[in-house]
Amino acid sequence: MAEIAVLGHGVVGSGVLEVLLSHKDSITSRAKEEITVKHILDIRDFPELPYREKFTKNFEDILNDESVRIVVEVMGGLDPAFSYVKACLEHGKSVVTSNKELVAEKGAELLSIAQKNNLNFLFEASVGGGIPIIRPISQCLAANEVNEIAGILNGTTNFILTKMLREHMDFDEALKLAQKLGYAERDPAADVEGDDACRKICILASLAFGTHVYPKSVHTRGISKITLADMGYAQAWGGVIKLIGEVRALDNGRIRIEVGPMFVSQESQLANVDDVFNGILVRGDITGDVVFYGKGAGKLPTASAVVADVIDCVKHFKARKYLFWEEGKDGYVEPYANSAEQEFVRAQAADSEEAFGKASQVFPGATRLIRKDAQPGEIGFLTPEIPVKEFANRLSRLEQDGVKVLNTIKVSDL
Amino acid sequence: MAEIAVLGHGVVGSGVLEVLLSHKDSITSRAKEEITVKHILDIRDFPELPYREKFTKNFEDILNDESVRIVVEVMGGLDPAFSYVKACLEHGKSVVTSNKELVAEKGAELLSIAQKNNLNFLFEASVGGGIPIIRPISQCLAANEVNEIAGILNGTTNFILTKMLREHMDFDEALKLAQKLGYAERDPAADVEGDDACRKICILASLAFGTHVYPKSVHTRGISKITLADMGYAQAWGGVIKLIGEVRALDNGRIRIEVGPMFVSQESQLANVDDVFNGILVRGDITGDVVFYGKGAGKLPTASAVVADVIDCVKHFKARKYLFWEEGKDGYVEPYANSAEQEFVRAQAADSEEAFGKASQVFPGATRLIRKDAQPGEIGFLTPEIPVKEFANRLSRLEQDGVKVLNTIKVSDL
Repeated sequence: MAEIAVLGHGVVGSGVLEVLLSHKDSITSRAKEEITVKHILDIRDFPELPYREKFTKNFEDILNDESVRIVVEVMGGLDPAFSYVKACLEHGKSVVTSNKELVAEKGAELLSIAQKNNLNFLFEASVGGGIPIIRPISQCLAANEVNEIAGILNGTTNFILTKMLREHMDFDEALKLAQKLGYAERDPAADVEGDDACRKICILASLAFGTHVYPKSVHTRGISKITLADMGYAQAWGGVIKLIGEVRALDNGRIRIEVGPMFVSQESQLANVDDVFNGILVRGDITGDVVFYGKGAGKLPTASAVVADVIDCVKHFKARKYLFWEEGKDGYVEPYANSAEQEFVRAQAADSEEAFGKASQVFPGATRLIRKDAQPGEIGFLTPEIPVKEFANRLSRLEQDGVKVLNTIKVSDL
Repeated sequence: MAEIAVLGHGVVGSGVLEVLLSHKDSITSRAKEEITVKHILDIRDFPELPYREKFTKNFEDILNDESVRIVVEVMGGLDPAFSYVKACLEHGKSVVTSNKELVAEKGAELLSIAQKNNLNFLFEASVGGGIPIIRPISQCLAANEVNEIAGILNGTTNFILTKMLREHMDFDEALKLAQKLGYAERDPAADVEGDDACRKICILASLAFGTHVYPKSVHTRGISKITLADMGYAQAWGGVIKLIGEVRALDNGRIRIEVGPMFVSQESQLANVDDVFNGILVRGDITGDVVFYGKGAGKLPTASAVVADVIDCVKHFKARKYLFWEEGKDGYVEPYANSAEQEFVRAQAADSEEAFGKASQVFPGATRLIRKDAQPGEIGFLTPEIPVKEFANRLSRLEQDGVKVLNTIKVSDL
């Protein structure tokens, strides 16, 4: 029998208990021993639950119980999750977590402690919910160099963008619907401003390229400024707008990483990833494009991924699973200002013909897009690829010429 | 240092050598020891190759070399691959194979020998080429019941169907192009008649549901009868025609499994899997739909999957990887005749209005489809869901009424 403890009885934590109970027989058969929850840490009381006697408010009860060899951390956030997980690993307990903030901020440190103590630190559930992605990337990597990973990593924003596109809701209306359906938090900033997607691409980048990438080093933009007009131009161009997290290996040994809304061609496998689904594209030098698609969040899919990691831990008490990356280092992430991109620009002037004439002077080779229902004086156009610094300068010139810039969105080559 | 042998120096075999060479450093780092090829078995001579001294024509050289602990079988076919692989496992050597025929016909027997001898028998490359699928399914399964797997499992036929749809080539023309480009064999039967897809869905079904499914027990149809007219009707319905391999768990403890061309709705994640790509949908009770997409074949992607398995073998000399299913049993596969399906029917009569009138009498509730460029007297319609046996009877009645049936295609609910 393998005895485990669960830190946190929120959405994912209660889901872990539910999955362990509902799939008890198949889990026992796959782990080759029974997995039982001995302690659950939560500051709240749950007197109505049949397993209420397992609860403790004292983390030391878990830390000092030598029969507990695996601890599941599903509290979220950094404090106290980080100190608890660190203490567990230092006390000889393997840890499974769904906490993307923890892995994105502290992954290298925790993996290093786990390695030193010959323990597992597993986090399949931290990216892509129930989609197997952490392990397949390790597997892809085994005999293949990954050059790029790009994905729709946040289900909430993808739901909002899908509603805007399909049902012509504006951003606020779609956000309210997402909140009503429980897809978005009351404070939706972490989702809509791209922070959640940023943590996930940091984890994937760290795993794929072997060096920790910290969220604060990633140029991150959200979707709150996206309008139905932008969507119309994306359609006119032959694509859609998606919130993409993307990392590429550069020839100079650095990586280029960013999160933001992007024009994605209808031909891309990511263009058809809609609603709350996630899609993750892994581009290898040998395998070419491999895409993983599924529900990226939700109580039970996430809990199922946690439990799968627990089973893996139980099966690998003796042989540690190989997951590792080094501490991040200065200069590893290419400064965003050094990159060059093709951009979509939506702007407004007194007369749209005249405005596009000015745009063509400022951005020679600009391509105009025409959308249905365009307002008088409105223009949308694509720039050629242009260095990011230069782009900002040119936008100022355009504004000096009397053309008001309303929004700009990167055009991806995915 | 881990010394391995490679059985067969054909397309995949030479690819394995190439990947081991081109990715030597990263492979050594991941396997934590150097992997070197000691022997290559082939009846041909390769005097021009730098590693020509590794070749042998005598399998015993490999079998009796105790330093070789992993054998890669990439000969294809059953004879002599089966006897070689069996002998290796009985002599304490783990085996990695890309041979789908071998796994589909002999998987249970070989897995059982491997288990008895505490060895690995791995075959990630046998399905989906470079797409990680065997291991993610094991992983999905850990804390989740898989209810259904459906996939586009053969790149050659998907290429042909894509060319027919997009460039209006007829089947023969598209097949010739596939042969010219090296996607199809000179004798294309194994691909176009569905046998290759059948072997792959057998492997996935065996893995997901734990009991071996033999190809001969699977109702299999190919795509050689598909016409541009059928494709036009699929479009009129709102979908495309894809060659699908599909298995579902039934409530009676059996499985329903089949391979054949099917109408697939444009809304399905499989509808946009085009050209030589594969897409595999795994439907779990907790995770919902998870889709894996990528190049399903090709020398180097397949070789890369083989090498990833070899690395896994090296890392798991002590702890065997968990892959297992039982021998097949009578009555496990639900007879195809017991199922009920919605069908598309294309037929011909003197007058199409009159023909559809008759069709509606024979199939009450039939829905007519109208395609562009329909020939005089031609009709296409969808039946309601109908038992397979009954469907055959009704088609005879339709023919007796003077309506000639030209083709029938299952309408999937994917």
